[in-house]
Amino acid sequence: MGRRSLLLLLLLLAFLTPGAATPVPPALRALSSLHLSTSFRSRPAVAMKYSIHYIQQKVDHFGFHTDKTFKQRYLIADKHWKEDGGSILFYTGNEGDIIWFCNNTGFMWDVAEELKAMLVFAEHRYYGESLPFGANSFKDSRHLNFLTTEQALADFATLIKYLKRTIPGARNQPVIALGGSYGGMLAAWFRMKYPHLVVGALASSAPIWQFENMVPCGVFMKIVTTDFRKSGPNCSESIRRSWDAISRLTEKGTGLHWLSEALHLCTPLTESQDVQRLKDWISETWVNLAMVDYPYESNFLQPLPAWPIKVVCQYLKNPNVSDTWLLQNIFQALNVYYNYSGQARCLNISETATSSLGALGWSYQTCTEMVMPFCSNGIDDMFEPHSWNFKEFSDDCFKQWGVKPRPSWIPTMYGGKNISSHTNIIFSNGEIDPWSGGGVTKDITDTLLAIVIPEGAHHLDLRANNAFDPVTVLLARSLEVRHMKQWIKDFYASLRKMH
Amino acid sequence: MGRRSLLLLLLLLAFLTPGAATPVPPALRALSSLHLSTSFRSRPAVAMKYSIHYIQQKVDHFGFHTDKTFKQRYLIADKHWKEDGGSILFYTGNEGDIIWFCNNTGFMWDVAEELKAMLVFAEHRYYGESLPFGANSFKDSRHLNFLTTEQALADFATLIKYLKRTIPGARNQPVIALGGSYGGMLAAWFRMKYPHLVVGALASSAPIWQFENMVPCGVFMKIVTTDFRKSGPNCSESIRRSWDAISRLTEKGTGLHWLSEALHLCTPLTESQDVQRLKDWISETWVNLAMVDYPYESNFLQPLPAWPIKVVCQYLKNPNVSDTWLLQNIFQALNVYYNYSGQARCLNISETATSSLGALGWSYQTCTEMVMPFCSNGIDDMFEPHSWNFKEFSDDCFKQWGVKPRPSWIPTMYGGKNISSHTNIIFSNGEIDPWSGGGVTKDITDTLLAIVIPEGAHHLDLRANNAFDPVTVLLARSLEVRHMKQWIKDFYASLRKMH
Repeated sequence: MGRRSLLLLLLLLAFLTPGAATPVPPALRALSSLHLSTSFRSRPAVAMKYSIHYIQQKVDHFGFHTDKTFKQRYLIADKHWKEDGGSILFYTGNEGDIIWFCNNTGFMWDVAEELKAMLVFAEHRYYGESLPFGANSFKDSRHLNFLTTEQALADFATLIKYLKRTIPGARNQPVIALGGSYGGMLAAWFRMKYPHLVVGALASSAPIWQFENMVPCGVFMKIVTTDFRKSGPNCSESIRRSWDAISRLTEKGTGLHWLSEALHLCTPLTESQDVQRLKDWISETWVNLAMVDYPYESNFLQPLPAWPIKVVCQYLKNPNVSDTWLLQNIFQALNVYYNYSGQARCLNISETATSSLGALGWSYQTCTEMVMPFCSNGIDDMFEPHSWNFKEFSDDCFKQWGVKPRPSWIPTMYGGKNISSHTNIIFSNGEIDPWSGGGVTKDITDTLLAIVIPEGAHHLDLRANNAFDPVTVLLARSLEVRHMKQWIKDFYASLRKMH
Repeated sequence: MGRRSLLLLLLLLAFLTPGAATPVPPALRALSSLHLSTSFRSRPAVAMKYSIHYIQQKVDHFGFHTDKTFKQRYLIADKHWKEDGGSILFYTGNEGDIIWFCNNTGFMWDVAEELKAMLVFAEHRYYGESLPFGANSFKDSRHLNFLTTEQALADFATLIKYLKRTIPGARNQPVIALGGSYGGMLAAWFRMKYPHLVVGALASSAPIWQFENMVPCGVFMKIVTTDFRKSGPNCSESIRRSWDAISRLTEKGTGLHWLSEALHLCTPLTESQDVQRLKDWISETWVNLAMVDYPYESNFLQPLPAWPIKVVCQYLKNPNVSDTWLLQNIFQALNVYYNYSGQARCLNISETATSSLGALGWSYQTCTEMVMPFCSNGIDDMFEPHSWNFKEFSDDCFKQWGVKPRPSWIPTMYGGKNISSHTNIIFSNGEIDPWSGGGVTKDITDTLLAIVIPEGAHHLDLRANNAFDPVTVLLARSLEVRHMKQWIKDFYASLRKMH
């Protein structure tokens, strides 16, 4: 798997959401007899009505040379909000358009009434409409200089203080941070760094340990492989063998042409370096599928059937076939992802995911703070071996952005594995989500809790209630609500104590 | 009191250290029967031997446009350090030369053996030798842009990680942050923001609440006044009356000349605006005296007798005298501060304190993040009325530095009064220290403790053991050591649990 796809893979960190069913995870065991609040069972979809707002934020919270400001966008939905005993659920926006997150975080809408909550969705700077320098925001490293997690958290802090100051009745209300994926990391870090502003955080599918020296770099691809291995006989083995098959086919004079035809590519492969691009694109497709392996039909990155990997694996039952046959099977498998609708005329190897992704910004972030080592070895996983080469990565970053990544900064800033002195953070992870490999999947203390959702993919718990939701995600959501209620209760108790 | 003196007053935040005796403060009450460790009683002065080191630090921890580094200075004293069961006491340097702080923080030297501690003194960027741009560091707001508390804390974090990585035996040792005054604020904030790096903090005389809307702006001058009122009959009243006396005298044609002679000024007053400068200088002198009101002879800002305010007040017993007589008495009083040695030929109204102060850097800091409102009203205090005018302050800052202060930032960043979710911080304050008005003087939780030292001035507890130390400061230090030992013990206990 090439470097490009490792980078692109990171792009997907946030946007995906999946689900699963059956066994009861560690943190849920105590809940096995818990009565599920009926509000979680098959409720009609909640109408998502919000108002759009803007706040002037300092471009640089941490320096005074520039006093420039920009407009940060945020959304508010207060239909169920109560001044008396209510709460504020604050989505710590990640790398993309905030409306997209708002629409894909049904959990917040589903619990709003029960928590008498105002919903706030804050857009992350440099994404969506919240561009510090407008069209010039990605021009060069000087303009990108203010795209950091610290600045983003400072925006959130400033926004919360502003809302409390300006919305009558909001001042003495508890705020809870919520986020998924990179947004989940931000939610957790926000609670760690600004515990005076949020009483707790729900960090869903947040790989806060997918950094230097914290988890093995191969864990991510290993989980992807496990997903395929478990979804059909010989499925991962077929994929593992496909790489050499591609190599052998393309060594022949007519191989590129044949492959272009067999895979119905929009743009034919012409050069030998196209072969690596092709492999990267296929790898990414499998990775994407692992992240969006939902239990129900969905239309997230692409329109997909329920449990799409199972569908894919139906075409990959036999690894012991000729190279051409194997690649024709691979095409059928890819077609599940790229052409479930049956509308696609050809497959485009330049694209794997939704264009809603803030690709530029996230690429810069991975080249500066968010340095996540990935690797594969072809043994524990079904991908071609690819070691993590920081030097190469760093050189590429410098070429692309004129900056050098600082892999040790995030651990220094946010504590790495040593976070036990913090409180009131729920880390939820789906076990089939490859990002769970870098997540917190065991309780750290009584108030730093891990919730594991077996067969759950990327932050399924943050998605709207669905009739096909596995029981474990209902349990997870119920547990999450229970903790949030406790945080809210504790907040009001300490408020009463003060007065 | 003029704006200049309010600014200058801030300059003194760090450098002062004082003491006092008798009653038992709230936090010490439980300790009334405590056995004082004999190590605190009259021990010969500890020799302060340290080695000087430098670490390359990023000029900007929070941006990647510049990858520039600079040399941060730090000192290490490891005479008493033990690899087995030892600890690291880390002084979070404030606004000045770190050697100066090292030499004036005898407490750390006194407890090193008992805690088997390595002592580390880290210099604050933009002070001493730790200049990010050398001689150009203060050139303009572009060069000063990286002088913030956040960058300073990031330097400390990076240094601690570096020491743990490079000093054999240091990796698995608990680090405790210590600091006085602004350094105490940094110690407390460091524990709040980087609890994974320090197990606790001793924040001595740290006015973390001397910010917008947290304490009345007049509290500082009120405490100064109380110090004078209690140190001699009619003392504060004499000073209160002196301002109008000066005004009346200088309204006359020969007044400026007469005053210049009477006060033995090096440079005669010539213009009417010199009158305000004179008043500011006198005000500052009283403020300085309140901070250095030590129980023993000392030579800190100036060579001074024990309990200097008492000595000063001997000259200010009678407020009901003529203007000229009152001003002659004021001269005698000022002379205690400026000429205890008897060597001064004249008094220089351009100076009030030691030149070791990092005046430029601190002035910039008060004009950016460290915006501390001060005021006086002439009723609750002995000074001329002076309201806190943020607009005027901000305009002056812009004139001087080209930057605008952001008074709400520090409360947003560090939590203001809402810090109860943090742990393991001791806030110690001397009751006669005017900075105690902005400090934490009541326990917040079981692990956020306040220690109040009656009659103690500015971070007396951090000074070396002295035969004239009041009992309460001995109790305070003993309590501090007891807590530090507990933090160290807890650290090792959790370390053992992990292995």
